[in-house]
Amino acid sequence: MKDDLVIRMSTLFLRTLREKPNDTETKGYENLVRAGYIRRSAAGIFTWLPLGLLVLRKVEKIIREEMRRAGSEEVLFSALQPKEPYEKTKRWDEYGDGIFRLKDRKKQDYLLAPTHEEMFTLLAKDFLASYKDLPLSIYQIQNKFRDEARPRAGLLRGREFVMKDAYTFDISETALEKAYMKQREAYIRIFDRIGLSYHIVKAYSGAMGGSKSEEFLSPLEAGDDSYVLAPSGFAANVEAIDSAQTATNADHALNPQNTPTTEDVHTPNLKTVADLENLGFKNSELLKNVVVTLTHPNGEKEVRIIGLPGDRNLDEKRLEVAIFPAQYEMASAADFAKHPELVAGFVGPHFDRAGGVKYYVDSSVTTDKAWVSGANKKDYHTKNLLLGRDFTADGVLNVVEIKDGDLSPDGSGPLKLMKGVEIGHIFALGQKYSTALDLKVPDESGKHQTVWMGSYGIGVSRILAVLAESRSDDKGLSWTRAVSPADVHIVIAGKSDEVFQFADKFAEKLAEQGVSVLLDDRFGVSPGVKFKDSELLGIQTIAVIGKSYENEGVVEIKERDGSDAVKLPYEQAIAEITKRVREK
Amino acid sequence: MKDDLVIRMSTLFLRTLREKPNDTETKGYENLVRAGYIRRSAAGIFTWLPLGLLVLRKVEKIIREEMRRAGSEEVLFSALQPKEPYEKTKRWDEYGDGIFRLKDRKKQDYLLAPTHEEMFTLLAKDFLASYKDLPLSIYQIQNKFRDEARPRAGLLRGREFVMKDAYTFDISETALEKAYMKQREAYIRIFDRIGLSYHIVKAYSGAMGGSKSEEFLSPLEAGDDSYVLAPSGFAANVEAIDSAQTATNADHALNPQNTPTTEDVHTPNLKTVADLENLGFKNSELLKNVVVTLTHPNGEKEVRIIGLPGDRNLDEKRLEVAIFPAQYEMASAADFAKHPELVAGFVGPHFDRAGGVKYYVDSSVTTDKAWVSGANKKDYHTKNLLLGRDFTADGVLNVVEIKDGDLSPDGSGPLKLMKGVEIGHIFALGQKYSTALDLKVPDESGKHQTVWMGSYGIGVSRILAVLAESRSDDKGLSWTRAVSPADVHIVIAGKSDEVFQFADKFAEKLAEQGVSVLLDDRFGVSPGVKFKDSELLGIQTIAVIGKSYENEGVVEIKERDGSDAVKLPYEQAIAEITKRVREK
Repeated sequence: MKDDLVIRMSTLFLRTLREKPNDTETKGYENLVRAGYIRRSAAGIFTWLPLGLLVLRKVEKIIREEMRRAGSEEVLFSALQPKEPYEKTKRWDEYGDGIFRLKDRKKQDYLLAPTHEEMFTLLAKDFLASYKDLPLSIYQIQNKFRDEARPRAGLLRGREFVMKDAYTFDISETALEKAYMKQREAYIRIFDRIGLSYHIVKAYSGAMGGSKSEEFLSPLEAGDDSYVLAPSGFAANVEAIDSAQTATNADHALNPQNTPTTEDVHTPNLKTVADLENLGFKNSELLKNVVVTLTHPNGEKEVRIIGLPGDRNLDEKRLEVAIFPAQYEMASAADFAKHPELVAGFVGPHFDRAGGVKYYVDSSVTTDKAWVSGANKKDYHTKNLLLGRDFTADGVLNVVEIKDGDLSPDGSGPLKLMKGVEIGHIFALGQKYSTALDLKVPDESGKHQTVWMGSYGIGVSRILAVLAESRSDDKGLSWTRAVSPADVHIVIAGKSDEVFQFADKFAEKLAEQGVSVLLDDRFGVSPGVKFKDSELLGIQTIAVIGKSYENEGVVEIKERDGSDAVKLPYEQAIAEITKRVREK
Repeated sequence: MKDDLVIRMSTLFLRTLREKPNDTETKGYENLVRAGYIRRSAAGIFTWLPLGLLVLRKVEKIIREEMRRAGSEEVLFSALQPKEPYEKTKRWDEYGDGIFRLKDRKKQDYLLAPTHEEMFTLLAKDFLASYKDLPLSIYQIQNKFRDEARPRAGLLRGREFVMKDAYTFDISETALEKAYMKQREAYIRIFDRIGLSYHIVKAYSGAMGGSKSEEFLSPLEAGDDSYVLAPSGFAANVEAIDSAQTATNADHALNPQNTPTTEDVHTPNLKTVADLENLGFKNSELLKNVVVTLTHPNGEKEVRIIGLPGDRNLDEKRLEVAIFPAQYEMASAADFAKHPELVAGFVGPHFDRAGGVKYYVDSSVTTDKAWVSGANKKDYHTKNLLLGRDFTADGVLNVVEIKDGDLSPDGSGPLKLMKGVEIGHIFALGQKYSTALDLKVPDESGKHQTVWMGSYGIGVSRILAVLAESRSDDKGLSWTRAVSPADVHIVIAGKSDEVFQFADKFAEKLAEQGVSVLLDDRFGVSPGVKFKDSELLGIQTIAVIGKSYENEGVVEIKERDGSDAVKLPYEQAIAEITKRVREK
């Protein structure tokens, strides 16, 4: 078993690359491929090579230990699942193109599960006899599948990926709160142990449903998620806060009596912000109207208009969330043709509602301004449009881009806009799934109660991507000690048998102390290449057995970044390395 | 960590069932479900519950240790794979309905890999620079998918299942032989350690291609595989031996000159063997002609006739193998309509070949008999048909059922016919995949050589099914010590706090010795129910802490089958249990 702790590069299935691969668009992904941790086999689909698998297993081990500590038991579902349960919760349709669907030889419908709420709920239904069986917490670490529109950055957004998903079952909302907090604490321990930096942010629950949810986001410029940090410590995903709360000038409503009435202005050439200003209007006073066509899960289409300030852009992800479970696309010429009341390029909020088109505004469209907008006739705009006096909205959405410096909804000051990657997501689901799948248990009085559920995910393979992205440099990867493929990387930089024999003994001795070793015992590979590989592979502590050993009998020890370099004889070198690697 | 070794049933996610579930057709499957190891979620698709997962992980651990010992390195592929590589090896088509195919949102074709020869070959191609990188052996333990026509017996034949697949890459056929033997030895160690009984049988390579292959078959009445054992020790899958070699009366050819010429007999009512005998013919002299329609991989259809002795049945699996990669169905009325030369019910081997239909015989159709067969006209049979004189065959197939007592091809005596389950399969693939996917490396002289490959599979989840089927009784499961979910099952059969406290201390003490414990600490569950559960769950050594402890201060220790029952005080009981569980 000791021997398991020494990996010999002379026989390791590894090939490092000096050149940047063609298709790796981020530094971390590039380094994972160059260092031989993973290989791409198709868009968003990867092969784990021995070193990558070692890191993955270490991450999994930490998760298992903390799940166990939180009282969660491990099970394992299949990826292939029948359609029916996902139909009952409507997710078969709601997921749209985002899941892989298939038919078996009997033409029955299946999916590759993107997540397993339905199956866990049904399993609990099969097992739970009464409130006495609660609380229950079960989880799995399993390969999930999602047909991402844009798989990217390697393991950061793949189509087949490793996920830990846990589920809790409780008799009451209060008990669910407790279970949720327990999982939250486990997540904090997991990410702390792995050595990931993260923020816990208020999140939108999306397709999952549920009352409360928080995301664990690791700050990363290449990330897909935008979130905000307030001076108070409040943090939220941009999909989870109101635009109005971020506007600096809300709540100073104009008096309709004192505001001039609307007036149409001839604007044949209004194309740019400069044109607008020439007419005497500020961009922030322009009411832009975005015409979209929604597709509802039942297939019904609907043209809808969304008004937003001219100085704000539409945030597509916030819009997706705001109209969920419908999906949208920009209205086409054909859609306009069906609605002559909408004049392309000149749509105003006071269009004729007889055509059945609904009008929504972003919450930053407030009553403190007289707006200028399209006049619903070609080459004309209308000015002095007051919300409530001259037009009304059928609803308020939160769809404009949040900007750095917008005010925090809690009044604590300007928001800092961050980019990050979701590494964990915890949901107090409530009763959505238990209601849809009829999961009830008798309580103490014998009355059947719908069970309260929580769902808690960790992107296991994504954690490697985040570590690679956030800790890579031009030389290569740089793992945290907790998940490093080995504790120490020993480079044999000499050629003599004696050096090789000493290095072997040195490695075995470390293994005896429980220190895992990656031993570069390749013969006929130059020290230069070996040093470059050691930086590329990214193990923190590096020991070199070469010239200094041959001349002075000492081992050179340093950290991957070159710091803390020392030269020590055998015994002290063993002691020093053992000490360093235990400083996790 | 010590605590990991005690599983407390009071909190374990487990529900045992007293009643037989509806859909479990075999005893082992029934017991796995009743004992709460697995649950069915759809046809051939299962959920692993905590105890089942524990056993699965133990099996996997043994496999990993032996793979490592054999010099094989672990990698991990995705299940979702693009079509192209499988097209290049023709397996995309050859697998027919047997694999799950799907399309992504861009309408690209994918499959859920039933096995990964193509992907491993491409990975090796990506990595191997020269003969110096050989030999290479890599493997994975991964979920595989096959759209089985008849998923059955739970984990025995599932549609998503856990498989270990290893691949070797070598520079020459000789080196491949060595790699093959090394894997073979690893398999022997793996199955011996797990405690499975098995035979290593000569196998047919089927869709895999390749020169040589052997199956590891575990004898089991409920098994899908038929194989034969000869007195010499020779063992073969029935698909891998010739029918002729099993016939008792081959090689005594009749002299065509001395044999009466053919003669048509009026046989309007010939329906049964008795009718035949009334006409003076033995069933073994009847030449039955089976008319099948083949579908070739390119979609072409072909009517073909296969002649076999009247006293032998067609073995559908042997026929499938014999005509691979074509697939067959019995000829329809429409097929007969297209071939007026074939008279349904009266087809004889001397039909008019001008219609293009080919005639094959099973190898048991020999020249030592004058055959009687259909006369190719309604209500007539022809007698005195001699192979070679009166009819010829376009080819010889091996498609009749092998019978117990047939002679062994090696002349060592009668064959014993066995039923079994494939738990492992090793293939010397040769160059099929490396040729199709152009995997070559320069040899010592710089010349590019096509790499020699081997492929080696173990049905990991199936091993649990085989253990459950072959070791179950009416009371429940019975695991081998090597893969048991715990080493000892401690039943608390008393009610006092003192008994519970003692049992807890007892369990912790065992855990300190490295003995894993399933502790039935459920409060308010009767001893009778607990005893029944202990037999159902199937851990070999059972310790009862109850009346004997309360009265005499001793622990009752016995084996699951009731044997070796002793009563011992604390210290001796710990020692006795530790001793027993280490006798693996």
